[in-house]
Amino acid sequence: MKTIEWKNGKVILIDQTMLPLKEVYIETSDYLRVAEAIRVLSVRGAPAIGVAAAYAVALAVAQSSAKSTPELLQEIEEAIKIIGATRPTAVNLFWALERMRKRAHVSSHLAVSRLKRVLKEEADKIAEEELEMSRQMGEYGAGLIEDGDNILTHCNAGSLATVDYGTALAVIRSAHNQGKRIHVYADETRPLLQGARLTTWELMKENIPVTLICDNMAGYFMSLGKIDKVVVGADRIAANGDVANKIGTYSVAVLAKEHDIPFYVAAPISTIDTSLPDGGRIPIEERAPDEVVGFGGNRVATEGIKVANPAFDITPNRLVAGIITDRGVLRPPYDTSISGLFA
Amino acid sequence: MKTIEWKNGKVILIDQTMLPLKEVYIETSDYLRVAEAIRVLSVRGAPAIGVAAAYAVALAVAQSSAKSTPELLQEIEEAIKIIGATRPTAVNLFWALERMRKRAHVSSHLAVSRLKRVLKEEADKIAEEELEMSRQMGEYGAGLIEDGDNILTHCNAGSLATVDYGTALAVIRSAHNQGKRIHVYADETRPLLQGARLTTWELMKENIPVTLICDNMAGYFMSLGKIDKVVVGADRIAANGDVANKIGTYSVAVLAKEHDIPFYVAAPISTIDTSLPDGGRIPIEERAPDEVVGFGGNRVATEGIKVANPAFDITPNRLVAGIITDRGVLRPPYDTSISGLFA
Repeated sequence: MKTIEWKNGKVILIDQTMLPLKEVYIETSDYLRVAEAIRVLSVRGAPAIGVAAAYAVALAVAQSSAKSTPELLQEIEEAIKIIGATRPTAVNLFWALERMRKRAHVSSHLAVSRLKRVLKEEADKIAEEELEMSRQMGEYGAGLIEDGDNILTHCNAGSLATVDYGTALAVIRSAHNQGKRIHVYADETRPLLQGARLTTWELMKENIPVTLICDNMAGYFMSLGKIDKVVVGADRIAANGDVANKIGTYSVAVLAKEHDIPFYVAAPISTIDTSLPDGGRIPIEERAPDEVVGFGGNRVATEGIKVANPAFDITPNRLVAGIITDRGVLRPPYDTSISGLFA
Repeated sequence: MKTIEWKNGKVILIDQTMLPLKEVYIETSDYLRVAEAIRVLSVRGAPAIGVAAAYAVALAVAQSSAKSTPELLQEIEEAIKIIGATRPTAVNLFWALERMRKRAHVSSHLAVSRLKRVLKEEADKIAEEELEMSRQMGEYGAGLIEDGDNILTHCNAGSLATVDYGTALAVIRSAHNQGKRIHVYADETRPLLQGARLTTWELMKENIPVTLICDNMAGYFMSLGKIDKVVVGADRIAANGDVANKIGTYSVAVLAKEHDIPFYVAAPISTIDTSLPDGGRIPIEERAPDEVVGFGGNRVATEGIKVANPAFDITPNRLVAGIITDRGVLRPPYDTSISGLFA
């Protein structure tokens, strides 16, 4: 199953807001529909958002009635602006849009029809590369996992967060496929329950043993010695190795440190933002209160209650034992290992 | 509003599973109905469970058709056995039942009708004492709170967890009533959302500023310097000061320590179990998986998923800055301060 695909001039996305109860696909040739899908988390997970954004640009281009290349380039800028305004934290969104923009500009000598084809091919290339990166992360990360490990993960960093295979779950899949007997604890991940809905769904499909827990239980299971490793994904990694990821990740990292449990982050290099010196500069998306006052569409909290709903938090580099990338496992000090990667 | 009351031979309980959407009262003369209310959390919170258990014994006695005192004592033993089997962690349940049993036995020279009255009076006394303990905790605890404090609490340790006023929320109420400007962060407290449903409801009724957050957000707000103190309740405290409380409390305590934030526990001395040397001996209730896979009948998790659902965890004494009791604030080392209390 691919999370996102281009087929016959359309983008096909599995609607992740409906999982696991319903397997519904969004099929559209309208790039605004893809932008909306990103905004409402029908497609989520940093690498998947990047690929969706690239295909959204390709759709905008394909559907354009621009008569000249300058006119088309203008439309591309407008589309990029709209797509880039959907979500602020995952850097893959901006990375993919920038890559599409650059490809358009270096191809500005081409005729409209040729430019359309080039940009569709660039989006395909981004999707293919992300898939290959997932496989590489799986390979590198599996080396960190031992037979018999109990692994905690937070949110969904699986196939559904990428084109396929995943980031953190790529590591778990790869270790499982190597015959290591592993068991996963999946944090349910309030408020949108990506762990309860998506991670459990993916792992059960592949018969990887998994136990669902509430976010507030992870520390207790650590204290009982039931968790050996933590592996999570990332939405953006600063140049010093500070990690923005789904809200709750920071708490898990602090708890892991308290119990001497290695805390790993799995992310393709497209998630590393070397323009930001540290995590303090990463914008944290604040989402709507209704996600918190309810549960699965059912209102539960007291009417009129004030709510905070940051969608991400920052885990400082000192809590990260290793960053599993498609180019190998980075180790502290991250300013050096990250700059080495981009040298 | 009283959480639990005796009126005209009946026990009246607010059904906490229906809050905040509906204010429904359970009115019964059947002690088995009260036992069921404890089991399904219609009444919850260690002190409230203790009072409900005492009144349940009083109901069993009042409804008894025993002809002789030995026959009545036998029925009391049976009732105590059934009521004691409802929930294993909160020690107030066993404390209250033991107190009722002792009162019955020291009164075994009395006639049936007189014994019935004595036991009703003993249950009333337990209720009155718990209420007075709440006020005392509020008084002592308020001294720890400063003007302008942002206070995190977990679960509900308020009026609804006691007869009235609360344990942790008694401290907050008392500080608020002293004119200190405080703001509360309420953890929603999965899986049963006592924070989102009950704590917010109580605090909003009294216009105490409160912001609802998901459990996994507390660490992030601590890292931003937005939390000054943590105050929680307890279900059982061992002789060395280890604390059993709602699942997630331990994680909050570790996070508080990481950020040098004082972590306080508020509990009446009826919650201290000096028969247990440490928290490792406190039985932790495992509740049904359906609490975790959904909420209020709304299923969200993948069908067939394996679930863990411990209802409590243990916070070791080293993470506790102070235990606010009705006899004053206990400080480490707790083995000494607790044994001093019972000397």
